[in-house]
Amino acid sequence: MLRQMERPEYAAKKQTGICTAGTIFDTLDTGQAANPEGRTMSSTVTPGELRKKIRAGAYAGNTSGAAPGFVQCNIVILPADHAHDFMQFCQRNPKPCPLIAVGEPGDATLPTLGDIDIRVDVPAYRVFREGELTGEVSDISALWRGDFVTFALGCSFSFEEALLEDGLEVRNLSQGRNVPMYRTNIDCHASGVFSGKMVVSMRPYRPADAIRAIQICSRFPSVHGAPIHLGDPLQIGIADLSQPDYGDAVRVEPGELPVFWACGVTPQLALQQARLPLAITHSPGCMLVTDLRNSQLSVL
Amino acid sequence: MLRQMERPEYAAKKQTGICTAGTIFDTLDTGQAANPEGRTMSSTVTPGELRKKIRAGAYAGNTSGAAPGFVQCNIVILPADHAHDFMQFCQRNPKPCPLIAVGEPGDATLPTLGDIDIRVDVPAYRVFREGELTGEVSDISALWRGDFVTFALGCSFSFEEALLEDGLEVRNLSQGRNVPMYRTNIDCHASGVFSGKMVVSMRPYRPADAIRAIQICSRFPSVHGAPIHLGDPLQIGIADLSQPDYGDAVRVEPGELPVFWACGVTPQLALQQARLPLAITHSPGCMLVTDLRNSQLSVL
Repeated sequence: MLRQMERPEYAAKKQTGICTAGTIFDTLDTGQAANPEGRTMSSTVTPGELRKKIRAGAYAGNTSGAAPGFVQCNIVILPADHAHDFMQFCQRNPKPCPLIAVGEPGDATLPTLGDIDIRVDVPAYRVFREGELTGEVSDISALWRGDFVTFALGCSFSFEEALLEDGLEVRNLSQGRNVPMYRTNIDCHASGVFSGKMVVSMRPYRPADAIRAIQICSRFPSVHGAPIHLGDPLQIGIADLSQPDYGDAVRVEPGELPVFWACGVTPQLALQQARLPLAITHSPGCMLVTDLRNSQLSVL
Repeated sequence: MLRQMERPEYAAKKQTGICTAGTIFDTLDTGQAANPEGRTMSSTVTPGELRKKIRAGAYAGNTSGAAPGFVQCNIVILPADHAHDFMQFCQRNPKPCPLIAVGEPGDATLPTLGDIDIRVDVPAYRVFREGELTGEVSDISALWRGDFVTFALGCSFSFEEALLEDGLEVRNLSQGRNVPMYRTNIDCHASGVFSGKMVVSMRPYRPADAIRAIQICSRFPSVHGAPIHLGDPLQIGIADLSQPDYGDAVRVEPGELPVFWACGVTPQLALQQARLPLAITHSPGCMLVTDLRNSQLSVL
């Protein structure tokens, strides 16, 4: 049902803006609760088999839990004349924007990530014109241009899997919610038209578990790496943990510290704020599933 | 002046107990402020040259800052019939009791750490009888027994050096004080007669620096490794940061979190509480200087 072109109902949102909780970000890259379909096909399918289904139009859902153990990526596609600036934005802000692969201009393959056709291998895409979300589609072949450059960025699924494997709880998963995300007062380093505040995701831990989580995530710099802050939210400009800017609030128990990771929503916001004539991203939660193993991203 | 046997004034302390700030622990293993002598000979001397001076009775001071870049060790010497239990205590509590070397019974050498005669190569020793400090000496040749086993344990000097090299402040060093240490409510895992609460040292950091300090210290498990707690001191039974059980209080700035590391005083307390007929340790701050480089202790 997502196999369609830009839908008029999205264009109508142009008036109200799109970067608000409950609209564009209500299923983010950790929005695994939104579509249980993604789970049912999880453990038996290989990344290649899953992409084949997606390519054939037989699967258009959330990829959380699909092909466990394999890296899933945030996708940004934009015209070549902004590619260098965007790449430099990623290079200057590696924690929110960890680059895993960059395509050649006009080339829809990403050979380091598997046998990929980026025009059809993501379950759902979002199309932005002048920074506004104008549609959600499951195939961008008709929109593809000879100057499009694809960026694949690391996603929190990988480090959440590493945390779970170590026996740590991931509160948003336990509660079956999207991870809570907050706009901070931390400025990203700008590059060309790309700039903005850093967005963080939050997972609460008791102090000893927070220390362990820092160790685990330090091994994965290409999926946001170690947290960037813990403790007092106000120090990074977050006034109220119960009011996330995106995603859902989660329970913070007495004795727990909120721990904050740089978040992949940061480059999406920077992209939208740049108001490019045309840009395409994955639809939150509907990631590119790659042949890379999470463990291959570990620096140790 | 320390080249002497057990002194009568220490025996007198038996009545009042010794484990109080200002007596036994007023220069601990990070007690570098106590003896500026240790600094003046720091950067030119090799570990072997320094041990030669100590062995010849020409140096009996604090070793902080001496032979920078090289590992210094806490020393515990006890009779072989308690050696297995003590070693197991260390094995079960690796964060406060990180074993770097263990000697053979009756053998005063520690070949993995350099050309060492443990009877004369430590600037100052403390002698405990029935758990009470009975003297401080600079040569234990006359006390040495055929059943003595030597344990060399990691010391915070190594990780403090790594923190400084990364550009992080070490507050106790900035303030020229002993690091503040606190008895926690955390029980060590007991082994035979050895048991007790974990002692921690505290260094304050802003959250992002605390995260970096966790990463740096994680590379050095044999010198206490990553912190064991950060944030609320009450969670580990510390009521008042301004009242350390050992060492000196340091300034904690607004916005800083107290960060707590397992501390080498833990095995010393366990040793004293075990009330062995005879046991010997280094005198706090007067460590065994080894030929091992700090960087060789790094697991990464």
